[in-house]
Amino acid sequence: MSSTYGENLKLSIFGQSHSPAIGMVLDGIPAGLPVDAERLQEFLNRRAPGQNDYSTPRREEDRPEFLGGVLDGFTCGAPIAAVIHNRNTRSGDYANLKDCPRPGHADYTAQIKYGGFQDYAGGGHFSGRLTAPLCVAGGLCIQWLAERGIRIGARIVSIAGEADDVDLDPLNPQLDLIGKDFPVFSPAAGERMRAKIAQARLEGDSVGGIIECCITGLPAGLGEPMFGGVESRIAQIVYGVPAVKSVDFGAGYAAAYMRGSQCNDAYTVEDGQIRTLTNNSGGILGGITNGMPVIFQAAIKPTPSISRPQQSISLPRRQVQELTVKGRHDPCIVPRAVPVIEAAAAIAIYDMILGNTQTDRRK
Amino acid sequence: MSSTYGENLKLSIFGQSHSPAIGMVLDGIPAGLPVDAERLQEFLNRRAPGQNDYSTPRREEDRPEFLGGVLDGFTCGAPIAAVIHNRNTRSGDYANLKDCPRPGHADYTAQIKYGGFQDYAGGGHFSGRLTAPLCVAGGLCIQWLAERGIRIGARIVSIAGEADDVDLDPLNPQLDLIGKDFPVFSPAAGERMRAKIAQARLEGDSVGGIIECCITGLPAGLGEPMFGGVESRIAQIVYGVPAVKSVDFGAGYAAAYMRGSQCNDAYTVEDGQIRTLTNNSGGILGGITNGMPVIFQAAIKPTPSISRPQQSISLPRRQVQELTVKGRHDPCIVPRAVPVIEAAAAIAIYDMILGNTQTDRRK
Amino acid sequence: MSSTYGENLKLSIFGQSHSPAIGMVLDGIPAGLPVDAERLQEFLNRRAPGQNDYSTPRREEDRPEFLGGVLDGFTCGAPIAAVIHNRNTRSGDYANLKDCPRPGHADYTAQIKYGGFQDYAGGGHFSGRLTAPLCVAGGLCIQWLAERGIRIGARIVSIAGEADDVDLDPLNPQLDLIGKDFPVFSPAAGERMRAKIAQARLEGDSVGGIIECCITGLPAGLGEPMFGGVESRIAQIVYGVPAVKSVDFGAGYAAAYMRGSQCNDAYTVEDGQIRTLTNNSGGILGGITNGMPVIFQAAIKPTPSISRPQQSISLPRRQVQELTVKGRHDPCIVPRAVPVIEAAAAIAIYDMILGNTQTDRRK
Amino acid sequence: MSSTYGENLKLSIFGQSHSPAIGMVLDGIPAGLPVDAERLQEFLNRRAPGQNDYSTPRREEDRPEFLGGVLDGFTCGAPIAAVIHNRNTRSGDYANLKDCPRPGHADYTAQIKYGGFQDYAGGGHFSGRLTAPLCVAGGLCIQWLAERGIRIGARIVSIAGEADDVDLDPLNPQLDLIGKDFPVFSPAAGERMRAKIAQARLEGDSVGGIIECCITGLPAGLGEPMFGGVESRIAQIVYGVPAVKSVDFGAGYAAAYMRGSQCNDAYTVEDGQIRTLTNNSGGILGGITNGMPVIFQAAIKPTPSISRPQQSISLPRRQVQELTVKGRHDPCIVPRAVPVIEAAAAIAIYDMILGNTQTDRRK
Repeated sequence: MSSTYGENLKLSIFGQSHSPAIGMVLDGIPAGLPVDAERLQEFLNRRAPGQNDYSTPRREEDRPEFLGGVLDGFTCGAPIAAVIHNRNTRSGDYANLKDCPRPGHADYTAQIKYGGFQDYAGGGHFSGRLTAPLCVAGGLCIQWLAERGIRIGARIVSIAGEADDVDLDPLNPQLDLIGKDFPVFSPAAGERMRAKIAQARLEGDSVGGIIECCITGLPAGLGEPMFGGVESRIAQIVYGVPAVKSVDFGAGYAAAYMRGSQCNDAYTVEDGQIRTLTNNSGGILGGITNGMPVIFQAAIKPTPSISRPQQSISLPRRQVQELTVKGRHDPCIVPRAVPVIEAAAAIAIYDMILGNTQTDRRK
Repeated sequence: MSSTYGENLKLSIFGQSHSPAIGMVLDGIPAGLPVDAERLQEFLNRRAPGQNDYSTPRREEDRPEFLGGVLDGFTCGAPIAAVIHNRNTRSGDYANLKDCPRPGHADYTAQIKYGGFQDYAGGGHFSGRLTAPLCVAGGLCIQWLAERGIRIGARIVSIAGEADDVDLDPLNPQLDLIGKDFPVFSPAAGERMRAKIAQARLEGDSVGGIIECCITGLPAGLGEPMFGGVESRIAQIVYGVPAVKSVDFGAGYAAAYMRGSQCNDAYTVEDGQIRTLTNNSGGILGGITNGMPVIFQAAIKPTPSISRPQQSISLPRRQVQELTVKGRHDPCIVPRAVPVIEAAAAIAIYDMILGNTQTDRRK
Repeated sequence: MSSTYGENLKLSIFGQSHSPAIGMVLDGIPAGLPVDAERLQEFLNRRAPGQNDYSTPRREEDRPEFLGGVLDGFTCGAPIAAVIHNRNTRSGDYANLKDCPRPGHADYTAQIKYGGFQDYAGGGHFSGRLTAPLCVAGGLCIQWLAERGIRIGARIVSIAGEADDVDLDPLNPQLDLIGKDFPVFSPAAGERMRAKIAQARLEGDSVGGIIECCITGLPAGLGEPMFGGVESRIAQIVYGVPAVKSVDFGAGYAAAYMRGSQCNDAYTVEDGQIRTLTNNSGGILGGITNGMPVIFQAAIKPTPSISRPQQSISLPRRQVQELTVKGRHDPCIVPRAVPVIEAAAAIAIYDMILGNTQTDRRK
Repeated sequence: MSSTYGENLKLSIFGQSHSPAIGMVLDGIPAGLPVDAERLQEFLNRRAPGQNDYSTPRREEDRPEFLGGVLDGFTCGAPIAAVIHNRNTRSGDYANLKDCPRPGHADYTAQIKYGGFQDYAGGGHFSGRLTAPLCVAGGLCIQWLAERGIRIGARIVSIAGEADDVDLDPLNPQLDLIGKDFPVFSPAAGERMRAKIAQARLEGDSVGGIIECCITGLPAGLGEPMFGGVESRIAQIVYGVPAVKSVDFGAGYAAAYMRGSQCNDAYTVEDGQIRTLTNNSGGILGGITNGMPVIFQAAIKPTPSISRPQQSISLPRRQVQELTVKGRHDPCIVPRAVPVIEAAAAIAIYDMILGNTQTDRRK
């Protein structure tokens, strides 16, 4: 198994950066769910490159063509299949990468695993471009979750150490206040982040950052014990997004520095609803949702493609060789990764909803 | 799916804290692999409670009885089944928890999910006790990995903010220097950590910490793209260990603050072997091992069971109620969690080895 | 994967004929389902050996001990684990089988697959004894299906060519008329079958037969297209029962000889319910139930263990050798296989019910 | 799960009879395997309609376009994705089927399951057209099996009761003698079968038949116990082929009428190789191959689409209504189903080879 995900839904993602198309099949989805193509396109546009100064100028439309599974704006019960054609392919740019792997990319590991048969152009199947079909699947799941009152929103916590000025309220996340143009709470912080990106670009370098994702409206009782827990399911898919190096939930790393009396979320009752006074658990206890917002963070490493010369090796000659990566690349993929993280979370959550096993209350 | 794991091997864990037994079935393991029961017991003893001053005095032998799959000291190809009988059951201690959930535990989420039918005694299936059968499975995988020259070692990075004095060398991990008695590099740091634990106990509180796990001897080319990557597979199982709130790989969170020129691991050749000069990737690129040590960290929250009074609720009356958790509990589970993290990593790695798909070189 | 089954529930079966115990883990079952131990025992007794003249005299109680997942007579949401201890183990009887495989058994294929490490005593994991834990799982599923008005009944169609005198009515199966003592419609036919069995025993030989299984009360719309169809799911598990050599549905083989005008089941309306006038489809169209009874047949080969001398080989010497299988064995396992087939069907159906994806009707 | 198959490879099939395209994704395939497009097309042509007098005149080219996973004639390690565009779509023909289900088709069950949202045109996802992408996947697997000396051949045993004059030799299957034009051993029998088909067409009716499939060159030791056995894995996928109503192995149904002394395959040694004197087991014991040819039969029901008027119902009015299916349809799909059965078997076998767990012989 590799590019497939799901216990109840079955997602299969295919294609390479420069193959005729990339796409996805999403099987196991109930019939009768609405598919709003325009809203999906708006979601995909958030991930699309070439929109502004800080991202790669390669322009793709990323307009999915549905080959099956959708009829007259609704799911029809058959597997949903969509492709995005790769129009802007420039394989020539990557010719020298076959023998000289780019540091930080999967060039070398792919060479070892696939023995030279791999599609190395543009990173092949390991390209960030493969997050587009992930966003098709996730964008659909987001629509279906919305029907259930479940909402997913992510924002940039920091880029290159430049942090958002406003913290997320883990008890009542202010998702509506996330910027549409640049997904942060504080526009001023967003400006500082953009400046950091611009500076990195000028210096032929790249920067990373941290994304926080929040899911509200989840019922309590979702998830399974042990390896089927919400953390396990989300972490598995989020780590499938290239460049993610850390996934944590609720207080996350900081929990390791707390006392139990501080970390435990005390219970309370508000308007007859059971809630917690803090949300260090990130809405999950024993792998199962407690009805509070589910919150996780993902750290994104700086884009491996930089224009500065780097030390690599010649694989045929097995000796050190300097490498300069040609072409223009995102100096920071964090803004474009925000909808990808949302998509990944939506797929994980919708998968769990489809297979949710609770008490059999027929008696 | 819940308490099952694995794409190629199939691990199923069962039992509750106070059920007649806990155990595991491990299917899909080749025949002919040695099973060293004594070495397994030594490994399990590292997890066992009641060994020293900082852990719970409940004494269980945690001696697994093999019901099938092992014959004359070797796997026989049939599913491996082992049980550990629960001898020291004291259900009475937990009677008041049915209506008043312990903050930080799964009591409330289990109540919602299972509608009152759940086994609430001692946390039921959510108890940390279930990590014992996980260690049976993982302890076996560790033996089988050792046959292939693959070694797993974990250590405590910090407890309650008290850090080990020596850093792991991510290029040449000094696994032999991890303390046998207390798994840190620096005995002095270990003493400071123990002091923090003792202090928390005195104050009726608990503390958490960070565990670092390292896997050496892995071949390059292990793992699959996207959702089958090494990070995805390890994160899924490690998040199945209770109290884990963060999992990161290589530079982890810190990668978000690096420049690309800093984070990219430059390649070099040493004695004809391709290596990297740094190991910020944690030995994984594109989800696939690059032959360098695989390194990840897991943050463990402080034990939710504390003797201080806490604010909870009465579920039947839906109003706030003070709760005092009775019994004696670990003020810090981090030391006992170290072998559990090793076990989880070993299972994930062995699963990937069994299903590793590389180039078909028959031509 | 091998001894595991299920897309939504996860069944794992373990143990060998002469290992300390055999058992099963059944994960993914909702909490709150009743577990009637007495009714389960009655079901298991139908499979148990040593009850009458035509079966093996080895006496086991086959009384499952639940290690987890069941509390106060209800499922508690944790994986259900049960073991049956092997008390009557006589490994000595099988010493000569290591080098000289019994024709018709898995001795030779196990030797090739497991390289001599396999547990050859009594067929090891391939023993028909492993159908006991299958019946534990299936017996539970039968109880839970009954709660939904779904009923499963199987009968012997023929043994050694001796056929039941009464046919099943595929439109309104007369399940209540299946004999309790010997599962046929016609007691006279049952007598003739028993006579055939007795005769085979006298001649040191064995006989096979055909079992028909019927499931009533199923809602229309259960099952998935293609490989997730009811036939696919049932056939997979039924072929996991030793000695099954054929599985067919509805008209089965006979459909190959029909005209379309004859084989197509015409629709009608009875009391406002849509039904078919015939049931050649066996209640399944496109892999999905149509609300009519689901009917399938399984052919059981004659017991491979016969007391007559047979031609085998010496594996070490690679030459032909005569083999006489010692011990006493069932000259016909068909009667004992009847509840096993019911159990297998129940597991498949309950698995499909848990994961049934139909129209999302929330709008 | 529905239109996905595989434990080690992951096959996902998508599309509907009249959607823009049909296709498949095949994940988990090693890199470096040759893909001979021409040979694949020859294989697909055996399934294609419109080739001769006995099949439907709808002409599709069924020429798969590879969107990913294949590079320069070899697999590249990425998921293999292929689509076949649906050019000849005539949705109008099916307008009346929405309310009046065709007997023998999945129209009614799809209506119940998908609540009217299903794509009813041409049977939608349930159409036999979906066997084209199955043949793409299977045709590739056949090529890769051939590299290992494994060969798959199927023939028609009978159509409408008209049987082939020559029997398959289960010890040394004469696969080369299967007719290229019409897959039978005896051309004369083939002529008689065609006459039966032509006659059924004249009478506005349809006929079914039996296909026998044989796999040679398999190593002994392939397959897993219980639910992972060769029979289980093949039956699951073959029952995913529309119109299959029976799957049996080796002696199949006839085994139920044999004595053990007759059914057991005695062992012998030929040229140092262990073989059996008969092959009633169909090459499988305990779910595992014994090195003899694997042989199974599948019964295909007569095409449900017939031009004669049939009794159906009006779904909106819930009353009986006569239905005449318009358009021209195959009076017999058995000849076209032959390569589909081969494809299904090849996928199952290749999946098992990828995940084959045998003795770990590293010591």
